[in-house]
Amino acid sequence: MMLSAKEIIEDLEQVRAKAPLVHNITNYVVMNSTANALLAIGASPVMAHAAEEVEDMAAIASALVINIGTLSEPWVAAMARAAAAAVARGIPVVYDPVGVGATPYRTRTFRALLEKARLAVIRGNASEIIAVAGERSATRGVDSSASAESAVDAARCLAERFGCAVCVSGPTDYVVSAGGAWMVLNGHPLMPRVTGLGCTATALCGAFAAVQPDRLRATVAAMAVMGIAGEIAASRSQGPGSMQVNFLDALYSLDSGEIRRRLKLSAAPSA
Amino acid sequence: MMLSAKEIIEDLEQVRAKAPLVHNITNYVVMNSTANALLAIGASPVMAHAAEEVEDMAAIASALVINIGTLSEPWVAAMARAAAAAVARGIPVVYDPVGVGATPYRTRTFRALLEKARLAVIRGNASEIIAVAGERSATRGVDSSASAESAVDAARCLAERFGCAVCVSGPTDYVVSAGGAWMVLNGHPLMPRVTGLGCTATALCGAFAAVQPDRLRATVAAMAVMGIAGEIAASRSQGPGSMQVNFLDALYSLDSGEIRRRLKLSAAPSA
Amino acid sequence: MMLSAKEIIEDLEQVRAKAPLVHNITNYVVMNSTANALLAIGASPVMAHAAEEVEDMAAIASALVINIGTLSEPWVAAMARAAAAAVARGIPVVYDPVGVGATPYRTRTFRALLEKARLAVIRGNASEIIAVAGERSATRGVDSSASAESAVDAARCLAERFGCAVCVSGPTDYVVSAGGAWMVLNGHPLMPRVTGLGCTATALCGAFAAVQPDRLRATVAAMAVMGIAGEIAASRSQGPGSMQVNFLDALYSLDSGEIRRRLKLSAAPSA
Repeated sequence: MMLSAKEIIEDLEQVRAKAPLVHNITNYVVMNSTANALLAIGASPVMAHAAEEVEDMAAIASALVINIGTLSEPWVAAMARAAAAAVARGIPVVYDPVGVGATPYRTRTFRALLEKARLAVIRGNASEIIAVAGERSATRGVDSSASAESAVDAARCLAERFGCAVCVSGPTDYVVSAGGAWMVLNGHPLMPRVTGLGCTATALCGAFAAVQPDRLRATVAAMAVMGIAGEIAASRSQGPGSMQVNFLDALYSLDSGEIRRRLKLSAAPSA
Repeated sequence: MMLSAKEIIEDLEQVRAKAPLVHNITNYVVMNSTANALLAIGASPVMAHAAEEVEDMAAIASALVINIGTLSEPWVAAMARAAAAAVARGIPVVYDPVGVGATPYRTRTFRALLEKARLAVIRGNASEIIAVAGERSATRGVDSSASAESAVDAARCLAERFGCAVCVSGPTDYVVSAGGAWMVLNGHPLMPRVTGLGCTATALCGAFAAVQPDRLRATVAAMAVMGIAGEIAASRSQGPGSMQVNFLDALYSLDSGEIRRRLKLSAAPSA
Repeated sequence: MMLSAKEIIEDLEQVRAKAPLVHNITNYVVMNSTANALLAIGASPVMAHAAEEVEDMAAIASALVINIGTLSEPWVAAMARAAAAAVARGIPVVYDPVGVGATPYRTRTFRALLEKARLAVIRGNASEIIAVAGERSATRGVDSSASAESAVDAARCLAERFGCAVCVSGPTDYVVSAGGAWMVLNGHPLMPRVTGLGCTATALCGAFAAVQPDRLRATVAAMAVMGIAGEIAASRSQGPGSMQVNFLDALYSLDSGEIRRRLKLSAAPSA
C-alpha cells in the first residue's frame, strides 16, 4: 500500500469522528498523560485493570492497549484475560514491551503475553524490540542503548512470526509488517526527555488501529501524528515541562495542512 | 436556603483559612492532578489506600473522598473500612462512581459501597448517576452518553434514598438534595478534554464539605468554583494541555470579584 | 568539606554526563513528575516495584530511591528486597519517609525499612524527620506542622545512628551528617503548593548520590539545585500549575551562571 499525508489525514479524521473507546492496561507513570493524549487526539480512554472487569471493559472497547511499564502479577494476569477477550471479539490489541531486556521478569512475562493474543501492533524502542525478538538485549532501565536501525531485523522477524505490525521508535521510527516497511522521520530530540511519550505513541497506535483495519497504515499514521505534534510542540517549548503541555495542545489542534507540510515518510529499504 | 456568590465566596475563604486535610482513595490516573487541585484551592490532600492505615488516616482527616476509577479488590476493601471510620467520626464522605454502568463489577462494587456510609455527596456524570440509581445504564467507558438533564430524576431518587447531596455534572451541573435543587451553568467545553476534571470536582466537594456542613451548599460551591476556574483557564489556553495547567493557576488565584462577575447559578425547576 | 557553587556545578555536570539510572520505588501520586524531573536533570529514571524484579533492577541501577507515600504490603516487601540488593552492590540508597507520624503503619513500616539498608540519605519534612527519630510526631497528613529548625536535632541523631546524610526540607533546608551541617536557603513559597516536589527532591538526592560519593555534598547539591530551579520557575509562574511546568524547564536548562548567582548556602551552627 502506498502511504502519504492523505491516508494519515483520513485516519486522524476517523479517530476524531468515531472517538473510539481505547481500553488501557498501562503503567502508573503514564496513566494521566496517556489518557490526556487519547482525549487530545479525539479518542475516549478508559483505564481498568481488575481481573473482575477487564473482560467486560474489553468487550465494550474498540482497541486494547497493554503496557508492562510497572508490571506485577495481578496486573499480568489481568492483561492475559483482557487480551484473550479482545482477540475473541476481534478488536485490535497493541503491546508495549517497556523495559523488556532490563530484567528477566519483564522479558519472560512479555513473551508469555505474546502467546495470548493475535496482535495488531507491537511498539517499543530498539533495545526492547531486540530483546523481545530473543536477541542479546541492550535495554538500560526503560531507555534504549541501541539504534533503531539495529532493531529493524528483529522487528521484521517479530512481524512475520506474530502477523502484526511492529514499530521501532527512535529518531527515525521504523514500522514493518508483512505488507511493507516505512520510515517516519518526524520528531524532535526533546521528546525522549518527557517521560512516557513512547507509551503515548503505543496508545495512539491503539486509537488508530481502532478505526483503520490495515495495521501497518494505522501504526504509520499514529507515529507520524506523534512526530509532527512533537515538532510543533518543541518549536514552542523552553524545556521538557512546557513540551509535555504543548504536545497535548498540538495533538488537539493538529490539522491537515500541518500534516501535509511536515510529514517526512518514506518506504524503508527492503530487508 | 438561598445561594448566591456570597455563600460561595465565604465557603472558599473557609477552605483557604482552614486548609482541611482531605483523605482521598482515588484512581491512579488522577492522583497527581487531584492532589494539585486540592493544594491549589487551599486544602491539604493525602492519598492512602492500605487497609493497615486507612482508618487511622480517616481519623485525622476532615473529609474522605472515595473514587472507584481504577478499582481492584484490595482497594475496595480499604474503601469500605475508610468509609466506616469516617462515618463513625462524623466527617463528610464523598463518592465518585467513575464508570458505574460500564462493567457489572463497577456497578456491583459501588452499590455495595453505598451501603457502607452515610454519605455527604455523590458526584458523577449523567450516565453514572443513572446507573447508580439502578436504571438502564448508558455509560461508555468513563464518559457519559446521556444528558445531565436526563439524570436529574435519578439524582433526586438517590438524594432521597441516601440523604445526601447528588451532583450530576455536565455542561450544566445539577445539584440536588432534600433541601433544594440548583443548576450551575459555569464551565467550558474544553474541560471534558482534560482527563480527571470530574474527579477533581469530586475532591473539591470533599474540601468544601469539610468546612460547610450544609451538603447542598458545599456541593454547589465546589461546582461553581470548578466551572468558573474552568472558564478563566479556557480563556488563556490553546488546548487541553495548557488548560490543565491554567486550571490549577485559576483555582489558586480565584478571587471574590471573579466569582461575583461570572457565577451563573439558578434554582432548578421543581421535580 | 567546604561546599560552594563550584562543587554543586561539578556534581550537576556529572549527573548530566553520566545519566545515572535511578531505580525508584515511589508513590502513585508523583511517579510521573519524579520521572520527568530525573529526565530533566539528565538522569535516567526507572520505576519498578514487583518483588519478581526489584533485585534485578537494583542490580543495573546506580542509585535506589524508596518513597513510602502510598505504601501497601506488597510494595513494602519489594522495598526491603530492593534495599538489600542495593546495599549488597554498594549503590546509594535514599529514603523518603512520606507521612511518617501520620499513621502508626507508616511509622512502623518506615522504621523497619531503616534496619534493612545502609542508607546514603534520608530526606523528609520536619514533622517526618521528628517522627522517624522517635520523637513525638506532628505530621498532619503528608504536610509538616513543625519548623525545619525544630527537626535539626532529630536529623543529627538519625545521621549519627544510621551513618547517612539527613535532609530536613522547608523554607530553609538543613542537611546534616557526621561530616558537617549545611543550610540551603534557596527556594520559593510556591513550591509546597505543587504536589510531590519533596518527593522530587528525594529522587534528585538519588541522582546526585549516584555520581558523588560524599553523601553530604550530594544532598546539598540536590537541594540547592531544587531550590534554585524553584526560584527561577516561580519568577515565571502565575500559580502552582505553571510552576510545575516551569520547574521542569528550569531544571533542564539550569546553568552554572544561575547557580553561582543564586546559591544561598551556609554552614549550619554546630549542635
